[in-house]
Amino acid sequence: MQAVSAFLANVKPPITPALVIRRAALQANLAAMQAACTAKGVRLRAHGKMHKCSTLGREQVRLGAVGLCCQTVDEAEAYVAGGISDVLVTAPVPPWGWPRLAALAMRARVGAVMDSVQQALAASAAAVAAGVTLDAFVDVDPGMGRAGVAPGDAPALVQAIRSLPSLNWAGVQGYCGHHQHLLPAERTAAHAEWTQRLRQLLAELRGAGLAPGQVSGGGTGTAAMDLAAGVYTEIQAGSYALMDVEYGDLGDLPFQPALFLAASVVSARHASHVTCDAGHKALHPNGPPQRVVCPIGSQYRPMGDEHGAIIPPGGAHEGDLVWLQPGHVDPTVALHDGFFVADEDGALERWPIDARRASL
Amino acid sequence: MQAVSAFLANVKPPITPALVIRRAALQANLAAMQAACTAKGVRLRAHGKMHKCSTLGREQVRLGAVGLCCQTVDEAEAYVAGGISDVLVTAPVPPWGWPRLAALAMRARVGAVMDSVQQALAASAAAVAAGVTLDAFVDVDPGMGRAGVAPGDAPALVQAIRSLPSLNWAGVQGYCGHHQHLLPAERTAAHAEWTQRLRQLLAELRGAGLAPGQVSGGGTGTAAMDLAAGVYTEIQAGSYALMDVEYGDLGDLPFQPALFLAASVVSARHASHVTCDAGHKALHPNGPPQRVVCPIGSQYRPMGDEHGAIIPPGGAHEGDLVWLQPGHVDPTVALHDGFFVADEDGALERWPIDARRASL
Repeated sequence: MQAVSAFLANVKPPITPALVIRRAALQANLAAMQAACTAKGVRLRAHGKMHKCSTLGREQVRLGAVGLCCQTVDEAEAYVAGGISDVLVTAPVPPWGWPRLAALAMRARVGAVMDSVQQALAASAAAVAAGVTLDAFVDVDPGMGRAGVAPGDAPALVQAIRSLPSLNWAGVQGYCGHHQHLLPAERTAAHAEWTQRLRQLLAELRGAGLAPGQVSGGGTGTAAMDLAAGVYTEIQAGSYALMDVEYGDLGDLPFQPALFLAASVVSARHASHVTCDAGHKALHPNGPPQRVVCPIGSQYRPMGDEHGAIIPPGGAHEGDLVWLQPGHVDPTVALHDGFFVADEDGALERWPIDARRASL
Repeated sequence: MQAVSAFLANVKPPITPALVIRRAALQANLAAMQAACTAKGVRLRAHGKMHKCSTLGREQVRLGAVGLCCQTVDEAEAYVAGGISDVLVTAPVPPWGWPRLAALAMRARVGAVMDSVQQALAASAAAVAAGVTLDAFVDVDPGMGRAGVAPGDAPALVQAIRSLPSLNWAGVQGYCGHHQHLLPAERTAAHAEWTQRLRQLLAELRGAGLAPGQVSGGGTGTAAMDLAAGVYTEIQAGSYALMDVEYGDLGDLPFQPALFLAASVVSARHASHVTCDAGHKALHPNGPPQRVVCPIGSQYRPMGDEHGAIIPPGGAHEGDLVWLQPGHVDPTVALHDGFFVADEDGALERWPIDARRASL
């Protein structure tokens, strides 16, 4: 691949702000994660919450992924509509979601995590009504307090799930979102502690005759440790495909920056900065600051919902493109409705962000 | 109208997270702003960047607005497609945007602000090529440093615009985004200072035989002062229609909370909090914190991209709805693709957020 600056100089998106995927970097990232999983005999179930793009998801499946993780019911619907035949909803499902997942299970393999008997009852009732079977995963809380049962409560929920019709007890989920962005030494320690707890739980389940079919979890930050630990049968990583400032700055991940945002300089009335057409609605402020990739050495500062400052201008003039790398990939992708996928020579293809939907 | 809590108890959106507009509050807000403008003989050009919804925009026009402001070229395109016949783009346009605005001007009255001769040349060339006329506004910087010429540089740009074919010099824009959220006393002082500068500029332009047709500006926070000052011919307010925590907490605006977000409690495994299905992708973190409206007395804390904590649970159980008011309305609306508009009895209508588009 060319240097990033040489590559970006070839890319001229027809509109701005525009998310641009560097195809060569994406393909390298996809190949690297799949190869790492294949080498350990572990399934890759790439997380679709990050890219919300069934074209990208189909490419992950083509390279060997068993299917996609989804964080919401509507992501699952969009991915099945987009040709993904095996989806797992990795967050607890609201009541309205169960009939929709059951309907989806008429067309695809559909799984969902749960952390209460109430959810298992709702899932079972919806599956019975639709005449389908849903894969049920027990969500185990690794200490985030967001969702999931305490490890000690998992066996009882497994028993409840197994007692209900039209649910297939498929395994456990132990996803550690709070470990993914720790610096390497802290991440190793936190990962080892959690892995030990997970091993105890799995031993307990096996002792009770409840051995799980799948143990699903892991992410971009911990994937190497997850694979080395030999506990997970399925890796849920997402961000590895496109990367961002937050993951790149960890310094120990074998993935390349593959996502950039192009903005136009729309006002240049000051020596201190120029104003570009990307603000809070194009670059989500969650995570570390957006990084200016071109012009090199400048900083980005949001100036409201639709604008940002490039400080100093670094030679950028009115009408020029400037390029940024998103601080946190997931919420920024969710602000856009398509990617431009660019070859090294600047040729562009459009991939819709078709699983983007927030309320309707 | 009922108390907010009684109203919300009647509303059951079919999915979550969901943006819900209280129709009675919206109508009261629309009527109040239109009446205030009409009483002063000032045009209301409501800002469409806030709601991105042509259904809502058509209602503003039906009640008396002359058209809509847009912050981006694609908002202008969506609004014209949605039946708005007069649009003004209130931010400098990137190079790719001029041919698209010129094409749009075949179907609607289209204006745009500009702050450089380069932009005027591009606008003129595109208009000439399309055989249309574009309304050209000189954008005057009120000291934000984001876009706009310094007041002293406005006359020269007016002359340049007047010399170019297919541009109709329509007036000046002096929008003070940085004044809108000041507390009342500071806002009054800042507004008076800026109004004085704007009056000087207008006198200078008149003295040079360059009297502007329109003076466009003003917002929800300053509208009462803008109308009292007698400087603006056109008010650009947007947020007044739906309101948010940021504007509501100013305490001096005659508008009611009209926008709420419904989320489902999806996990309830802790005494300290419950987890709902609204995170950074449903509630944009820009602005003050999101406010929990129901259960009363609880706080919201984001827990990642798709989840948030309600602290304490306040009686909310798994599967229940919780209700929030967005901290800052504009970027949160841009995360969703539709509103549910609710009558007092809970009857729902869907309005698409059809001007939502960020990159393609």
